[in-house]
Amino acid sequence: MDSERNESRQLKGIGASAGIAIGEVRITDRRRVAVTEVMVAREEIPCEVERFTSALERAKGELYALKDQLASTHGPEHLCVIDAHLMLLDDTMLVGETTQYIERLGINAEGALKRTLGRFKTFFEGVEDDYLRERGNDVETVVERVLRNMVGEKQEPLTKIDGKVIVVAHDLSPADILQIDKEKVMGFITDLGGKTSHSSILARAFEIPGVVGLERITGEVQDGDTLIIDGATGVVIINPSQDEFKEYLQKKQRYEYVERELLKLRDLPAQTLDGHRMRLKGNVEFIEETASLEKHGSDGIGLYRTEMLFFNRSTLPTEEEQFEAYAALVKKMAPLPVTIRTLDIGGDKCLTDLDLSDEMNPALGLRAIRLSLRQPESFKAQLRAILRASAFGEVKLFFPMVSGVAEVRAAKALLEEVKEELRGRHPFDEKVQVGIMIEIPSAVVIADLLAAEVDFFSVGTNDLIQYTLAIDRTNEHLSSLFQPLHPAVLRSLKTIVDAAHAAGIDACICGEMAGDPEYLPILLGLGYDELSMNAVSIPRVKKILRRCTLEEARAVAQKALNFATAAEADAYLKGEIAARFSESFD
Amino acid sequence: MDSERNESRQLKGIGASAGIAIGEVRITDRRRVAVTEVMVAREEIPCEVERFTSALERAKGELYALKDQLASTHGPEHLCVIDAHLMLLDDTMLVGETTQYIERLGINAEGALKRTLGRFKTFFEGVEDDYLRERGNDVETVVERVLRNMVGEKQEPLTKIDGKVIVVAHDLSPADILQIDKEKVMGFITDLGGKTSHSSILARAFEIPGVVGLERITGEVQDGDTLIIDGATGVVIINPSQDEFKEYLQKKQRYEYVERELLKLRDLPAQTLDGHRMRLKGNVEFIEETASLEKHGSDGIGLYRTEMLFFNRSTLPTEEEQFEAYAALVKKMAPLPVTIRTLDIGGDKCLTDLDLSDEMNPALGLRAIRLSLRQPESFKAQLRAILRASAFGEVKLFFPMVSGVAEVRAAKALLEEVKEELRGRHPFDEKVQVGIMIEIPSAVVIADLLAAEVDFFSVGTNDLIQYTLAIDRTNEHLSSLFQPLHPAVLRSLKTIVDAAHAAGIDACICGEMAGDPEYLPILLGLGYDELSMNAVSIPRVKKILRRCTLEEARAVAQKALNFATAAEADAYLKGEIAARFSESFD
Repeated sequence: MDSERNESRQLKGIGASAGIAIGEVRITDRRRVAVTEVMVAREEIPCEVERFTSALERAKGELYALKDQLASTHGPEHLCVIDAHLMLLDDTMLVGETTQYIERLGINAEGALKRTLGRFKTFFEGVEDDYLRERGNDVETVVERVLRNMVGEKQEPLTKIDGKVIVVAHDLSPADILQIDKEKVMGFITDLGGKTSHSSILARAFEIPGVVGLERITGEVQDGDTLIIDGATGVVIINPSQDEFKEYLQKKQRYEYVERELLKLRDLPAQTLDGHRMRLKGNVEFIEETASLEKHGSDGIGLYRTEMLFFNRSTLPTEEEQFEAYAALVKKMAPLPVTIRTLDIGGDKCLTDLDLSDEMNPALGLRAIRLSLRQPESFKAQLRAILRASAFGEVKLFFPMVSGVAEVRAAKALLEEVKEELRGRHPFDEKVQVGIMIEIPSAVVIADLLAAEVDFFSVGTNDLIQYTLAIDRTNEHLSSLFQPLHPAVLRSLKTIVDAAHAAGIDACICGEMAGDPEYLPILLGLGYDELSMNAVSIPRVKKILRRCTLEEARAVAQKALNFATAAEADAYLKGEIAARFSESFD
Repeated sequence: MDSERNESRQLKGIGASAGIAIGEVRITDRRRVAVTEVMVAREEIPCEVERFTSALERAKGELYALKDQLASTHGPEHLCVIDAHLMLLDDTMLVGETTQYIERLGINAEGALKRTLGRFKTFFEGVEDDYLRERGNDVETVVERVLRNMVGEKQEPLTKIDGKVIVVAHDLSPADILQIDKEKVMGFITDLGGKTSHSSILARAFEIPGVVGLERITGEVQDGDTLIIDGATGVVIINPSQDEFKEYLQKKQRYEYVERELLKLRDLPAQTLDGHRMRLKGNVEFIEETASLEKHGSDGIGLYRTEMLFFNRSTLPTEEEQFEAYAALVKKMAPLPVTIRTLDIGGDKCLTDLDLSDEMNPALGLRAIRLSLRQPESFKAQLRAILRASAFGEVKLFFPMVSGVAEVRAAKALLEEVKEELRGRHPFDEKVQVGIMIEIPSAVVIADLLAAEVDFFSVGTNDLIQYTLAIDRTNEHLSSLFQPLHPAVLRSLKTIVDAAHAAGIDACICGEMAGDPEYLPILLGLGYDELSMNAVSIPRVKKILRRCTLEEARAVAQKALNFATAAEADAYLKGEIAARFSESFD
């Protein structure tokens, strides 16, 4: 079996940013700085604190310089990530704990910083939401920068790369992605990283193909090797054969053709062949992403996640800070509507109040509306900020993790208080629509009772599937059991939309099912009014929508509901899609 | 406010074992041994290993001596816990890792053992099931014993206590509970401990009143103080006033009277005033508990948890070991039926394959039937052991954590394989009934589809409520949101029993709702056929059952289903119970 040498090899990672890239390996050293904790003599402690402080200052200087450098090529929205890193360098916990470790344990600055990083990591590993968990990478990236400054190591910046290459690195920071010149770097692959890391989000926003989470790729290739990467499937081919090369060249051309064709759908209405309109909107967490929404066409923002404002900082954002962020987004999108979700995270998940003796099952913990209702003052500050933003465009707001009627009534009572406080002081939309996420099984079971309390439902399919099947969706051992077509999921989706329509309110979906064109016929057929998804998915979903009739979709949904297992429903749907929309999924 | 000195003070802990006790404080030193990790010179390493090994041997010697001593007063079933501790002292991980820590890190034996304990603790903290998590205490107790032997500290045994006292300790081990002489020790209270610790389970089995989890009680009382403890409510009164003293003396007499009255129900049938029979069975995890079942009267075992056989050991139990345990229980209970649940835990939760980089949301993880289906050989060994035990009495078996039809079909296929293997080799009941736990929301949504596949449903209300409401039931911040009377829970309970009866199969409940007399009218009214609970709850539930008519119960259930919030349903039910069964809940 030794004949594999020099033959092409294929690996599979996580597709981080779609697109096919072909190019030469350019290994870029982004290995972690190796540091060891050692005890230091008592008299050396002040010197270690000083080493830490000056490394912090040098790291800040580098980031300010990078920001200046990028300002000529990137809009200010894209530089938010650098600001976030700068803020972290001033973070009370990062700076304070490290200093305390040095002083109390009598250890070197590197060891102390590693311990602080360890604390952050343990904490972030406990965060349920995968988007938020990936924010831990920001801390790691910043700590790396400080550590490199301590030990005096330098990194080659990606701006110096020349030729048509694929960057291969242990990991790439968001700052690295910002420095990529698309004329020279065709794509990137890394050992580490996840689909929802800040770097991956930026790569998708800039449409740089990338595959991450390859684990040991830096050890398996060398400069000069040829690579093919498929950022959609996560496939990486090292030294492809002639046939593979041809195949992927075709795929690349095809992909680029499809992309161009899809973008032509941008200004066409999202409706079926028989004229049934369905709203297709975008899910957004960074204002950077609005550019991509505009490029791909959308009917507004169906889910704006406000968590980012609360993350990577030691104090809660003020009402003013929140108002500015929401108003900026609302103005940018007007006249299209923006649906803002109130904070969907545990308070312990804000670094304000870090407690590592933490919840055992964070997915089933004190978070979202549960927490908001227990911290009415900060919840009301958020509600005030959202209401005030409603003066600048159409705003809807909704509450996450609702499990029953009592929570909705309590949240609406606080909203009324806030409205009363604002009247005569700040303009806002008196008729702002109020909805809830349907993502907890109990909310499905009593959807009829909840529909009487609100203006719309928005289904979080990811969490709904997770809770309904009791499958942690971030648990890789269980990915085969995370089944959107499980009969219990389909029945739940039907219960929700039927209850909404019986009460005369809209039913929307903002989970990942909404952005998967394969599920469009079912969601349309069940009667959903609105789907909200990642920007790039909008034209893909719209394409299928424009080829369906409502009648056909209803038949597909009805049929899919009749299977006893997800496997049968899946086989049926795949067959149906292949027969009806064969060329649409390329 | 300084006038509180010398006045009575009331504290609230966790009621571990019901009953009221009044007595004098007897502080018993059960503080943890304080040890520090220090580096040792290379040449001292063999000596540290030797210290560890000989402390292990001394601990074993103590346990064997204790076992001999207790053999005269306790049945062999009650000494299982000492055997479990003896097994732990031979555990590969406990012994192997500690030795490795000494050798590789060059640290002292105490520090190494503490590190191993830390690993166990981190691991046990990640265990979702609160029963199993408490097994971590067994490890801690054993490690304490070894540490005490290392540092040469001795503990005063509880057997030496004289007079009518209430033992106050930092923590009490199961061995301590076994040594309690009920003539001298009226009850116990501890800083640490949980309701489902091994010590608490034994205290309930021996009916020794106890309150645990008081946090700092050992620092707040001194020898000679008078104490009143209420093991049902967790109330502890230090130096009670005359009025409090009288009040609790009355309560104590009343409690003892009620207990005696309840035991008279033992041999009366579990049926309503109008003759509707409902089976009341026991939940059991240790064979020690069968004595209590016999005392309180039961229609069999409705839930035998097999997890204990797999815990606190480094290798999986063999088919023979399992067969012996199951057969012993079945013989002991015959002719009453025993319903055996297959393994309800993650494989990573067996110490066999400890992986600390573990699941983030264990409640939503790879466990129970999901794991069994991925490890068909060990699953089949368990199925063979259960089937073989069915030769000695009526056995039913059921699968936990079922989320869909595919899992049931796969499990039944393996059961058929096992039957085929056993035929002609071992006797077993060909018609053994096969059921599933209904505890995942998807199973409720497709209860009709599942009912077609099995012989009975058993509802795990604890997990069902947890998943339906997305509330971790072990999370103290959320206890007010864990609502058995949430309309979604009541509707789910109705869906389940209706689906079962439509398919002609039985619907049982084995979660905590089954053992709470307050819920009896609803569960009876919904139509459930069987309730399984802790032994002591059986007469309490039976008492209410024998005062209801089926008609009344149906009306209560119907009414309870009509409320929009749990609070309303709760108020209604409390009123109803107070009106109809006022004196029944003492």
